[in-house]
Amino acid sequence: MKIESKPTTGIIPCPVILLSVEGSPQPNIITLSWVANVCSDPPSVAVGIRSQRHSHALVKEAGNFVLNVPSSEHLEAAKTCGTKSGRDIDKFAECGFHAVASSRISSPMIAECPINLECEVREIVSPGVHDLFIAEVVAFHMDEDVTENGQFDPQKMQAFTYLPLSGQYWSLGKRM
Amino acid sequence: MKIESKPTTGIIPCPVILLSVEGSPQPNIITLSWVANVCSDPPSVAVGIRSQRHSHALVKEAGNFVLNVPSSEHLEAAKTCGTKSGRDIDKFAECGFHAVASSRISSPMIAECPINLECEVREIVSPGVHDLFIAEVVAFHMDEDVTENGQFDPQKMQAFTYLPLSGQYWSLGKRM
Repeated sequence: MKIESKPTTGIIPCPVILLSVEGSPQPNIITLSWVANVCSDPPSVAVGIRSQRHSHALVKEAGNFVLNVPSSEHLEAAKTCGTKSGRDIDKFAECGFHAVASSRISSPMIAECPINLECEVREIVSPGVHDLFIAEVVAFHMDEDVTENGQFDPQKMQAFTYLPLSGQYWSLGKRM
Repeated sequence: MKIESKPTTGIIPCPVILLSVEGSPQPNIITLSWVANVCSDPPSVAVGIRSQRHSHALVKEAGNFVLNVPSSEHLEAAKTCGTKSGRDIDKFAECGFHAVASSRISSPMIAECPINLECEVREIVSPGVHDLFIAEVVAFHMDEDVTENGQFDPQKMQAFTYLPLSGQYWSLGKRM
């Protein structure tokens, strides 16, 4: 028995990504779930950011950003970076994160996140209250300790996911 | 210690979505992970589809599609719909799925998937070998048996996720 309700953004499960972007006096971080890999060649991502958010202006200004994939130990930081504004606080300091220089772009990476994608904005489209930044991945980094023989090993990283339909964060279980 | 490697689509974890679209002589299904909620108002999604895929032409022709969220019992169907072509087989028949009429669009829903988003294409952008279809969610359906008091209850749905960096499907674990 299917129940029809108000149209909503019901795709689950969603990634939880910490976007870092250069700024003045300090770089900023915003937590996002409206984000996806969207193209293999060139490797590209799409990122939805509400136009009123501080990071929206910073990304437009910089033309680049880093998508940092956190592990479960960063859950509280993800909540902080998703609810507080970089206009009011230094989120790197607040979360105990360290900014490290990227190799190809001006925005810094978050050292503590095990996976980092350096991205350059290629196009911006405006489906509604969120703008959609379409960006090319120009550099990719992984912590050695989430790899096995040079390949990503999910067993070594406590990845987690967000379910917008229930507003819950869930850990991953096991390989199917 | 961070290791830099070739730029890649490294966002994890990713949703696993079965996109259904009208077609002749029968509707088709394609499994996608290059998909996200991207805007809250109007509720919108973005879907990356490689231009050579059969469903790419069908979505362009129909101007609409349904995003069906499968549960773990549909893992084999997801693999089938991601690797075989609707040019060669009837994927609804192959997977034992039933097409049911949508309420607002011409493409049918997959009855067996617990969550269904009816979507109308609003814009197509071309970051590379995948085109990105940006679409508005115009109707939303959930199976009653994944709800509790009318709200989505993740405990009642065995959702799963895809990790492109390792090519693995993982179940969800527990609420954090």
